[in-house]
Amino acid sequence: MSEITSSPLPGIASTLETLAGRPGHRRRLAAGEMLFHAGEPVASVYVVLSGLIRMVRMNQTGAEVTVDRAGPARWLAEASLFAARYHCNAMADTEACLLSFPKAAVVEGMQRQPALATELMIDLARRLHEARLRIEILNISSAQDRLLAYLQAHASGENEEFTLSGSWKALAGEIGLTHESVYRALAQLEREGRVRRDGRQVWLAPP
Amino acid sequence: MSEITSSPLPGIASTLETLAGRPGHRRRLAAGEMLFHAGEPVASVYVVLSGLIRMVRMNQTGAEVTVDRAGPARWLAEASLFAARYHCNAMADTEACLLSFPKAAVVEGMQRQPALATELMIDLARRLHEARLRIEILNISSAQDRLLAYLQAHASGENEEFTLSGSWKALAGEIGLTHESVYRALAQLEREGRVRRDGRQVWLAPP
Repeated sequence: MSEITSSPLPGIASTLETLAGRPGHRRRLAAGEMLFHAGEPVASVYVVLSGLIRMVRMNQTGAEVTVDRAGPARWLAEASLFAARYHCNAMADTEACLLSFPKAAVVEGMQRQPALATELMIDLARRLHEARLRIEILNISSAQDRLLAYLQAHASGENEEFTLSGSWKALAGEIGLTHESVYRALAQLEREGRVRRDGRQVWLAPP
Repeated sequence: MSEITSSPLPGIASTLETLAGRPGHRRRLAAGEMLFHAGEPVASVYVVLSGLIRMVRMNQTGAEVTVDRAGPARWLAEASLFAARYHCNAMADTEACLLSFPKAAVVEGMQRQPALATELMIDLARRLHEARLRIEILNISSAQDRLLAYLQAHASGENEEFTLSGSWKALAGEIGLTHESVYRALAQLEREGRVRRDGRQVWLAPP
């Protein structure tokens, strides 16, 4: 028995499985391997079981821009569910394991099972909210204020604790800063007593 | 007979009307009037019939950030359809006319009419794609390259023509620049022959 069928599927994967009317096809990617390229027809919907997938576009100046990063229990490329072709490249940032479901079967299943379709829609609405939050953060011009806004948006718990999930460099890319700017901003925030830091943990001082 | 019932409704309004099982309630706003505030319960779904509604959040530094701008035939706040409370303020940028539908009736209707629910979902996916495109543009550090990327993303037709819909200042806010930077960048792009401009029209030179 594979580890996929023996361990419970993430909620979104079982939703997609029921919608598609068949189990997902398992796919493994090595770090750096491409999942799909911009311009290719959208044939599948994927759920990440482990690892990290990065959605990347080349901007007008040829620089690589990360438009989204999806870890375990995320499905992708949600924004392309009704599109004919992908708008971005997707590549594995780390070794990754995914389930793929035929897109056409998922979209057809949505007509028969509206409650499950609503689950996908709730998830789309959540991603849209996250994207707009990121727009808000990217609109802050000072590096220090921008980093602080990001930490505030992603901190949780009574102690306003933030745990770095990837690298500081990846975080920098996500908020449109160089990693040098992020290190400088972080050091400055520590000096001003607005954050306290221990390795990958950051605690925000009460305002 | 009101002008609403005598003129055809935008597609999304008739979708919402059928989902809600009742005609929309009409609402007029003066320029500057608030439609809803962050933190208020999400009770209604709105479609813009005329005018422009701006979704605004205060960032950590107290500055106002426009997270979305919705003109005729757009519905809002889509990202909040399944949320209990609004995440942003919405205000009329110009005199505006909207239709409102009870959110609960729309969400219930989605269970009975999956094909119409899919229409809303397609629209959500489109907004998500737009938001990610905006993230991509905001990640470009040079003002000139950022403006050019915005123009390229919004130009259309054989002549790669862009028509300014609001003000240059509003466009500047949308891409995280001051309007002075936008004017400078525009002048520089003109001097370099990469764009040609006549008032509110901009034509992009072939690459």
